[in-house]
Amino acid sequence: MLGLGLIGGSVLRAAVAAGRQAFGYNRSARGASEAAADGFDADTDLHAVLTRAADTDALIVSAVPVPALPGMLEHIADWAPDCALTDVTSVKREVLDLVTAAGLQRRFVGGHPMAGTAHSGWTAGDARLFRRAPWVISVDDHVDPAVWTQVMHLALQCGAVVVPARSDEHDAAVAAISHLPHLAAEALAVTATDVPLAFALAAGSFRDGTRVAGTAPDLVRAMCEANAEQLLPALDELLERLSAVRATLAEHGSVAELVEEGHAARTRYDSFPRHDIVTVMIGENDWRDELAAAGRAGGVIRSALPVLDRPR
Amino acid sequence: MLGLGLIGGSVLRAAVAAGRQAFGYNRSARGASEAAADGFDADTDLHAVLTRAADTDALIVSAVPVPALPGMLEHIADWAPDCALTDVTSVKREVLDLVTAAGLQRRFVGGHPMAGTAHSGWTAGDARLFRRAPWVISVDDHVDPAVWTQVMHLALQCGAVVVPARSDEHDAAVAAISHLPHLAAEALAVTATDVPLAFALAAGSFRDGTRVAGTAPDLVRAMCEANAEQLLPALDELLERLSAVRATLAEHGSVAELVEEGHAARTRYDSFPRHDIVTVMIGENDWRDELAAAGRAGGVIRSALPVLDRPR
Repeated sequence: MLGLGLIGGSVLRAAVAAGRQAFGYNRSARGASEAAADGFDADTDLHAVLTRAADTDALIVSAVPVPALPGMLEHIADWAPDCALTDVTSVKREVLDLVTAAGLQRRFVGGHPMAGTAHSGWTAGDARLFRRAPWVISVDDHVDPAVWTQVMHLALQCGAVVVPARSDEHDAAVAAISHLPHLAAEALAVTATDVPLAFALAAGSFRDGTRVAGTAPDLVRAMCEANAEQLLPALDELLERLSAVRATLAEHGSVAELVEEGHAARTRYDSFPRHDIVTVMIGENDWRDELAAAGRAGGVIRSALPVLDRPR
Repeated sequence: MLGLGLIGGSVLRAAVAAGRQAFGYNRSARGASEAAADGFDADTDLHAVLTRAADTDALIVSAVPVPALPGMLEHIADWAPDCALTDVTSVKREVLDLVTAAGLQRRFVGGHPMAGTAHSGWTAGDARLFRRAPWVISVDDHVDPAVWTQVMHLALQCGAVVVPARSDEHDAAVAAISHLPHLAAEALAVTATDVPLAFALAAGSFRDGTRVAGTAPDLVRAMCEANAEQLLPALDELLERLSAVRATLAEHGSVAELVEEGHAARTRYDSFPRHDIVTVMIGENDWRDELAAAGRAGGVIRSALPVLDRPR
């Protein structure tokens, strides 16, 4: 485990709780010593940790922030280039590009456990953070069935449900369902702040609609800015919808079209079918496409899929 | 009580539970008979109900939707013009204008209990709906101290906390903290609906940010459209904020400014001071201005204010 913050520290705890042998690296001495004080195998010596990973053929999980990733990947390429590699970052295309640029694509399968809290650092971690949370695992064309299987086992052992997805589709989806709602929440909070009486009356719809504006600004910036390519078109569509309703309200006194479409969309979301993916065999012909299609349709993996003996 | 839907029916239940004598009118026989079956004094004969109100010098509470209000006000002007009159509608300027047009302004004090559920009709009502909810009571220049006091007592008996506010300020505030979040929620839901995988991954920030898009479209339309005058400038400000962040993200890869302002605004909301208004005497010089200023600053009335013996 590279990086022992909220997510990395929680994966380390969950992996150990599931009976795995796991060890971690943390850049700051504080996080490493906090982890060690809690009885975990943690170190600030990256060379030692990566050499040990290479010697034990470990699955490397990168939990460092995107800005620190290029440097980290260089070290992995130097000291543990043949290890299976995954990550827990909230954008997948940029990570994949960086991994490819570092020459590590062959053994890489991207991941994104969709869980978190408003807190950060080792002490905020929790072995149960991923229970029943979706954990996206990339099924891009290059992914290796054996590595994919390893990452799937880790996610399931952490208590998550696995959602297979292509990196680009993942990024477009989180732009629409996470990054855009964050920006809308910020803008709603700012808009209310200059209105006398607004905070005095604010309740349900404002509290819910701006809740995520309470997230630490650095975290919101990091995820939005790293996903600009997908966030911009989502933002354009939101602006278009809001401009359209502004026009119909000003000209015809009506918000009917948006409100009816919005209600229908939310109703579809509430009744979105979820089912277990059970029929795909990892490594068989077209397994990546089949998993991507199943994930798109609401499928999740709750128990390990079988693996073809001799994957193609 | 005129109209026995969710809000009107809940006020009737709460008033009776508080020991008041109360009776109601409902246009549809179904609502009236449901109320009667539950042991309440309910009728579909508007003439009989208003005549009785006039004979008993009742406080009339209008809980009919805005489109039905002009007709209702005509009947009140014909049959019970001298009764104290309040309402429970979510916009206050339009109601005040209609009341003034009907010649009923002298005995009218607008109200807005800020509570609700996603359901409607008599059977959805609940005597406890208003417990600890803000109940805005208008302090426009015209309001009569004696009527204001009656409405304050009703709200407090229903378990609400009273927020005094001018009609225009109320409407601007609810545009920013309720109507705008509703439109944003609708637009966010619509934007996600065409993105493959979006609903499969949607969780916390999407669920919260679009929750109110689950509200019945007719209710959302009614409140937004009746408050167009205040909602349009709020919508313009939201569009401006979102356009600005679109520009900085596209040009500089940054969402910093909005995210930092949004976080600061949400933090201010979380720590917005609330206090009890206890020093104002209803009917004294400038009592309306004093109450409006106190409400703006986060003040609420939790127990009945004293009333000047001979109000000016």
